[in-house]
Amino acid sequence: MTYCVGLKLKHGLVFMSDTRTNAGVDNISVFRKMFHWEATGERCITLMTAGNLATTQAVVSLLNERALPAEERGSPSILQVPSMYQVAKLVGETLQEVIRDQTGDAGPNAESAFSATLILGGQVKGGESRLFMIYPEGNFVEASEETPFFQIGETKYGKPIIVRAFSTDMTFEDAIKITMLSFDSTLKANLSVGLPLDLHVYKNDSLRLGTQRRIDQGDSYFEALSLGWGEALKNAVQDLPPYRLDDT
Amino acid sequence: MTYCVGLKLKHGLVFMSDTRTNAGVDNISVFRKMFHWEATGERCITLMTAGNLATTQAVVSLLNERALPAEERGSPSILQVPSMYQVAKLVGETLQEVIRDQTGDAGPNAESAFSATLILGGQVKGGESRLFMIYPEGNFVEASEETPFFQIGETKYGKPIIVRAFSTDMTFEDAIKITMLSFDSTLKANLSVGLPLDLHVYKNDSLRLGTQRRIDQGDSYFEALSLGWGEALKNAVQDLPPYRLDDT
Repeated sequence: MTYCVGLKLKHGLVFMSDTRTNAGVDNISVFRKMFHWEATGERCITLMTAGNLATTQAVVSLLNERALPAEERGSPSILQVPSMYQVAKLVGETLQEVIRDQTGDAGPNAESAFSATLILGGQVKGGESRLFMIYPEGNFVEASEETPFFQIGETKYGKPIIVRAFSTDMTFEDAIKITMLSFDSTLKANLSVGLPLDLHVYKNDSLRLGTQRRIDQGDSYFEALSLGWGEALKNAVQDLPPYRLDDT
Repeated sequence: MTYCVGLKLKHGLVFMSDTRTNAGVDNISVFRKMFHWEATGERCITLMTAGNLATTQAVVSLLNERALPAEERGSPSILQVPSMYQVAKLVGETLQEVIRDQTGDAGPNAESAFSATLILGGQVKGGESRLFMIYPEGNFVEASEETPFFQIGETKYGKPIIVRAFSTDMTFEDAIKITMLSFDSTLKANLSVGLPLDLHVYKNDSLRLGTQRRIDQGDSYFEALSLGWGEALKNAVQDLPPYRLDDT
């Protein structure tokens, strides 16, 4: 499993992903699930992946290959297409191409086994920063004011805190805090989501990679947050009106 | 879908269940998923059900039929077996019998379609109060000091708050508050879990039904809790140490 979150704030984008992959609970590994493409001053793109690791690695490899200057096969490149919409379309087509390729003639069941879902965000000069969720079918939806975040992978445990506490006008720092709490809830519940976590913060119109962090076992801030959250939640519960068993 | 929670406190048991059943989002109904058997002063048993409605209704009907005094077919009765362990065994066997009966020769796929999972709790005179989760295979596990609660149905959204905030030595009132928050998170995320909710609070050694409530749309306490929780969570987030983007 996997857990990745992308948030769209008024002043930028926040991406966080875990790094655990597993084929059974006795076969776990660490793989990066967050990838970047950058042409400083012109575009900055971040991709997060959930699903079959062979599929997502093939997608990233193909995107990389086709972005090489030496590449002359005429395939469009993630570093050249003129807008974030075109980037999303290109990534979606690449994903669909890889899934079809791996599935061969094995039919819909295999297609589901080789499936993957992606979160893509970033900005191309001349456009706004945008955030997309890309489906295995190659199509995609875009984050909006009403739904300013996407999750992929093991999304349920960590959703309530984001739904309740996140708003698009908060600071990067607060948004990161909420995202970490969402990861903490998920890590506590599902062994197939694991540290370290990758973080990228993209500031609107910077058109370059922003702060990148790897949050590892023993990260003092994450530990303090995880420890403090139990207490903070208990206090939050106490702040609410008491339930009366003996009223009517 | 469904959501049911059973909590084992030091001084009793708390049960809460939703009432929504659905066959597609365009075919939803209200069905009770919490059932009681009582012999005042001798035993009090509560059962909550998740899964195929035909299966769970058949289980409850069979348990009821066999508990009738007129019933002389020699089947053991939920009101007669001598301990909560025997009650759990009986309910598990009844569940397995119903699933097998409905499946016929249709094989494992049908078995999964007709499947159901149950939470059973209560007390029989001479024993402690106990809480069990019963699987479609008819076997069951019991709540312990380390895992003092069970959830069935759509369990993920509402798990983090219980894991973080529930402890076995809290009051019934606080435990109910936390359970309602867990339901609120789930209701907000999954349309197939819906109001009204049923609540039963069993006080250890009372050997009779305790407080029973139906929490319906417009319940003023539940609404206040739901409204206040967003604010309380935001405050809880603020209580935690701030994340610093510009430290090392």
